[in-house]
Amino acid sequence: MWDRFLRACCFQSVDRTPVWFMRQAGRYMSEYRAIRARRTLIEICKAPELATQVTLQPVQALGVDAAILFADILLPLEPMRASFEFRADDGPLIHSPIGDRAGVDALRIPDPEADLGYVLETVRLVRRELEGKTPLVGFAGAPFTMASYLIEGGKSTSFLRTKRFMHREPAIWASLLEKLVEVVRRYLRAQIGAGAQAVQIFDSWAGALTVYDYAEFVAPYMKVLFDDLKTTGVPVIHFSADNGHLLELQRDTGGSVIGVGWQTPIDVAATRLGKSVAIQGNLDPVALLAPRPILARRVEQILEAVARPTGYVFNLGHGILPETDPAAVAFVVDRVHSWRTE
Amino acid sequence: MWDRFLRACCFQSVDRTPVWFMRQAGRYMSEYRAIRARRTLIEICKAPELATQVTLQPVQALGVDAAILFADILLPLEPMRASFEFRADDGPLIHSPIGDRAGVDALRIPDPEADLGYVLETVRLVRRELEGKTPLVGFAGAPFTMASYLIEGGKSTSFLRTKRFMHREPAIWASLLEKLVEVVRRYLRAQIGAGAQAVQIFDSWAGALTVYDYAEFVAPYMKVLFDDLKTTGVPVIHFSADNGHLLELQRDTGGSVIGVGWQTPIDVAATRLGKSVAIQGNLDPVALLAPRPILARRVEQILEAVARPTGYVFNLGHGILPETDPAAVAFVVDRVHSWRTE
Repeated sequence: MWDRFLRACCFQSVDRTPVWFMRQAGRYMSEYRAIRARRTLIEICKAPELATQVTLQPVQALGVDAAILFADILLPLEPMRASFEFRADDGPLIHSPIGDRAGVDALRIPDPEADLGYVLETVRLVRRELEGKTPLVGFAGAPFTMASYLIEGGKSTSFLRTKRFMHREPAIWASLLEKLVEVVRRYLRAQIGAGAQAVQIFDSWAGALTVYDYAEFVAPYMKVLFDDLKTTGVPVIHFSADNGHLLELQRDTGGSVIGVGWQTPIDVAATRLGKSVAIQGNLDPVALLAPRPILARRVEQILEAVARPTGYVFNLGHGILPETDPAAVAFVVDRVHSWRTE
Repeated sequence: MWDRFLRACCFQSVDRTPVWFMRQAGRYMSEYRAIRARRTLIEICKAPELATQVTLQPVQALGVDAAILFADILLPLEPMRASFEFRADDGPLIHSPIGDRAGVDALRIPDPEADLGYVLETVRLVRRELEGKTPLVGFAGAPFTMASYLIEGGKSTSFLRTKRFMHREPAIWASLLEKLVEVVRRYLRAQIGAGAQAVQIFDSWAGALTVYDYAEFVAPYMKVLFDDLKTTGVPVIHFSADNGHLLELQRDTGGSVIGVGWQTPIDVAATRLGKSVAIQGNLDPVALLAPRPILARRVEQILEAVARPTGYVFNLGHGILPETDPAAVAFVVDRVHSWRTE
């Protein structure tokens, strides 16, 4: 059943539980490292043939039920005129972090076809390769997570600058989030137009907010975004790492599938979310490094706890770590596919 | 009421909600920076007169309802023969991280009076100063959190090495945790013997574990520790950051007070924990940097949500950040004290 992933997102019956992995194309695979050895991440993204090849690697090697576009959530920053680079070990560095109204006003809303055409071309190429075999998931960073990079200038642990910005400059924060909603909305609609059969919105760091801050400073913007994307008809996955405290709020802002971070037991998440949304998750990425008997048990604990015949997609609760053995990932695919859905 | 903190821990009636702050003695205070300017953190800890002075600073400046011993959870590592240093910005560095049986066997169980006498002397000095005015909280790192430093060699984000160790070498892991239980047990009993009127166990990073790993590889050891400490009769606070998924498991291992990370709404935590334990928390430390109206609202949202006349201690959900204005902390103390308990 080539479309069991799409069917599970929509609560249609499936023959097997679908499975894919966040960061399933990446450094843990030797096929990827071979391509990456002579090129930067951005160079691969900007070469649609290469990005296509990388997107297809895990589909071919692992037999996962969905391909995810090879790209990066920060790609739109360049045409927004917020220049950045990836540093070897320290992650992204935004050259001029935003701290005021002028910084927000200077951000441009990209035209996806003109400014991010290479991403859309990759979507078209991947679709051609996978037609009738495996569905393709497009993606973008969520407004809050994008804003946090723009304000912090890179990764953060406390998100002190971002929170201070939203608390002290709520009007400028609103302008920034509204602009980012428009950026993400156009970008995802363009990916869907080019052929993405589902999209995932990575609000990776939203879990850094209390429910109070999320409800006040993020939820209203996410609602606008999800309401718009709903009319496309494709499944929209709403993901954050470490979102145990936000589940109900995130469900209420939107998305047909809620991605659950690995901390929250999936049965607890399923009960709290109810039957109106599908769920995706939530194996601890580090479990992939455990001996097989422990890994098998952790996978089964999740499959048993889910207790849904459909409306569920197996995945990690965050991205695959570079230290992971691809054989462990293949082992999980096999375990999930041999689990009886009933 | 000088003992409202101790009374709240034991569900005795209080006139006001008690309040103190994790890291209330620290870099955000100019009084502390003045002492720290010419000495390392370890030097201050090892000079009981100075450590006493630092312990008392927030009590005098802010009127909090508890003093917390000025010390560091890593102090026992030195007499355990696991040498380490604090680097300027990167946190602790353990010189020879543990990776095998020999590493665990080489760890020594300190004699608190002989090896950590300076901590006990600080406890005695602080008690003398605060007698009948403010109670003193002693503390130690929990076995898992100590083990994570010993194995990772410092701070971690994924805790990959620690989890791999517990999964791949469960027997050696058991020896390590058993040894650390004994270290912490003796150390906390010595602090209580020297006069600490309550103790807090910082299992700061336990939230990095799934419920499955916590139940299998941590909970049994914590239960032994808490069962032992229970017989001392002093309140024992069980704290982890980001512990929303672990609350029930942590309550069941022990502690008369459960510290709640700032992510989980406190009413959700209170409902899940039930009435058998007191709760402590859980303002987002970054809220202290917000404008006063937002800070006031966040404090009130917590006080309102708690809805308990006692069995509750106001605190942050993690430590005070160095960027914090002491006036904001004083503002919170005032707000909490002017809240009606009924």
